[in-house]
Amino acid sequence: MSIKDKIAVIGVGCSKFGENYEMSTDDMIIEAAFEAFADAQIDPKEIQAAWVATLSSGISATTLADPLKLYNIPITRVENFCASGMDAFRNACFAVASGMYDNALVVGVEKLKDSGQRGLGTFGNHPVLAYGTTAPSLFAMAATRYMHKYGITRETLAQVAVKNHKNGCFSPKAHFQMEVTVDKVVKAPMISSPLGLFDCCPTTDGAAAAIICKKELAKKYRDNPVYVKGLGLAVTSGKPYFKPGYDYLGFEATTLAAEMAYKQVGITNPRKEISFAEVHDCFTITEILVYEDLKFCKKGEGGEFIPTATLEGELPVNPSGGLKSFGHPIGATGVRMIYELTLQLQGRAGKRQVKNPQLGLAYNLGGPGSVGIVTILGNQ
Amino acid sequence: MSIKDKIAVIGVGCSKFGENYEMSTDDMIIEAAFEAFADAQIDPKEIQAAWVATLSSGISATTLADPLKLYNIPITRVENFCASGMDAFRNACFAVASGMYDNALVVGVEKLKDSGQRGLGTFGNHPVLAYGTTAPSLFAMAATRYMHKYGITRETLAQVAVKNHKNGCFSPKAHFQMEVTVDKVVKAPMISSPLGLFDCCPTTDGAAAAIICKKELAKKYRDNPVYVKGLGLAVTSGKPYFKPGYDYLGFEATTLAAEMAYKQVGITNPRKEISFAEVHDCFTITEILVYEDLKFCKKGEGGEFIPTATLEGELPVNPSGGLKSFGHPIGATGVRMIYELTLQLQGRAGKRQVKNPQLGLAYNLGGPGSVGIVTILGNQ
Repeated sequence: MSIKDKIAVIGVGCSKFGENYEMSTDDMIIEAAFEAFADAQIDPKEIQAAWVATLSSGISATTLADPLKLYNIPITRVENFCASGMDAFRNACFAVASGMYDNALVVGVEKLKDSGQRGLGTFGNHPVLAYGTTAPSLFAMAATRYMHKYGITRETLAQVAVKNHKNGCFSPKAHFQMEVTVDKVVKAPMISSPLGLFDCCPTTDGAAAAIICKKELAKKYRDNPVYVKGLGLAVTSGKPYFKPGYDYLGFEATTLAAEMAYKQVGITNPRKEISFAEVHDCFTITEILVYEDLKFCKKGEGGEFIPTATLEGELPVNPSGGLKSFGHPIGATGVRMIYELTLQLQGRAGKRQVKNPQLGLAYNLGGPGSVGIVTILGNQ
Repeated sequence: MSIKDKIAVIGVGCSKFGENYEMSTDDMIIEAAFEAFADAQIDPKEIQAAWVATLSSGISATTLADPLKLYNIPITRVENFCASGMDAFRNACFAVASGMYDNALVVGVEKLKDSGQRGLGTFGNHPVLAYGTTAPSLFAMAATRYMHKYGITRETLAQVAVKNHKNGCFSPKAHFQMEVTVDKVVKAPMISSPLGLFDCCPTTDGAAAAIICKKELAKKYRDNPVYVKGLGLAVTSGKPYFKPGYDYLGFEATTLAAEMAYKQVGITNPRKEISFAEVHDCFTITEILVYEDLKFCKKGEGGEFIPTATLEGELPVNPSGGLKSFGHPIGATGVRMIYELTLQLQGRAGKRQVKNPQLGLAYNLGGPGSVGIVTILGNQ
């Protein structure tokens, strides 16, 4: 019941994230994938199977096959809300671990800026949501409730943005390289109360890629592969707000996915054993809830945990800048997290490098808190 | 490099296929999945992971989680054109074979009749296709070219419809239970020349389900499990018509997927070694091309092969009635084929039972001939 130490990541790549008006979906796939090919020193012709993740920027496997001219091999498209990229990585790991393929390519991609819509679509059906709600308004309910229950303020939320934007300045491929202050975050235009502009991650274009292989073959490609230690995925209802008493004070899917992954790795004290984490900070409140759901701290203590999660802190969270400053091209994000974990675990993260990491955790949340996925990688 | 004899199918289910206006997507999922649970004599609570396939009738894993109340376990959504269902089955097989899960549920579903559109969407970009083309018009080009090159007539195409509608009469869950004659097919209203109404599969609602487990556990559930022998998937361009000289006289993705699966199973003479096949007869011409692409007969001899493919023939093809009479709810079809293979291999197919089958082949084609997938199951 475990995938531990069967799979190695041998190469990663990432396009520039941002408002890539000058690039097509294909251009971004090519940039990310060829960086990964070069990183793994693998000829694209050696790739035996591939997975592509995208929510709305492609249909089917041909989304990947055509730009890379990666024809005649098996390719699968996975879509699972904002968790698509990491779930594609998970499925690729299973396929290689099954013995069917020696290696596999995973690419996540999304082009959000060329469509007329701003942000994601609207959801309906619930009395409160009858006229449609958006991602910011869904997470605003979580923020409001959390503020009510635990007494944090907009200034506490803002500290997440301040931390992640600071980290983002050290990420050349991030959408934003700019620091923000608590004052700037709090005074920014309101999007959905209590979440202002800088409480929300941007609408971003981007692609990311990872190449995996059987553990036994990894050293053929590089001296410092990283290894897949745990893969947890849990799905709860797509309409959690129909559940009586549902309070948005954390997401069960996250907790369950983390428990699965921790069990596979043998982690009993995540705060001590995880070296750093890349997590789904789609909104500032999300990262605070994530600290608690991942058991980095106790319920209600997420606000106080923020200083612990800085680049110099005990458990750095989002050294890349997170979704908040790196951006969140839906299908790409999970794979981009694998990219960051790999660079960090190999000591290749430049100015944002965390100290002596051994285990890195990546986490995506999909839908209205419905899909939680956790991947743990290690360098030993 | 093989999955042979690692995975067993222990239960299958299928909703009534048809114009299910009285049923929602959820209703059909429930009908198919609970039939599979009962068939495997497994408690839904024992299911460790799941995959759901749908093209346009759901987004993400919650499409499956909510109707079945299958919460807190890992669920992935796979979409790969008309091959979605079989690719979801393939990914589930890898996950179980990797050792991560003991069992998995696969469900494919599509509700096509409630949308305003008729058939699938249109494609653009090519001079010939600039104003959009439909699935019938794409396959009409294949038919026209094949007729030109090999001299078959509309009467030959019609024989495929006659055969498959005859078989469909023995399939209580098929969309249509009615025989047609060559005369009726040829005189039916033209859809896209030379394909008339009865050369096209219907627009259909439906769902299908399969439960798999590790081979070692299969006999716990039933005396007659069937085993996964081969899984082949190949992806070519999403715009094959841009390739100079492309003639639509068969689909490379099919040939390559079949070669992969044959190699895994050790099949050198498919015509002799395959007992029967469920194939992607979205249009009558498709089935003729498939005979050739799967190496059941030589290039240009597909028309002559039709009598060989009857229920009483040497190599029955589409004993269920195929897409032509069973219908083609996109995400459901691949899993529905696994359902048919399983029943046939267990001798449970009633009046459409083929004689003493040992190896059954299922095949889907996705997009404009872009995605080919072949699954081979056996009962020993």
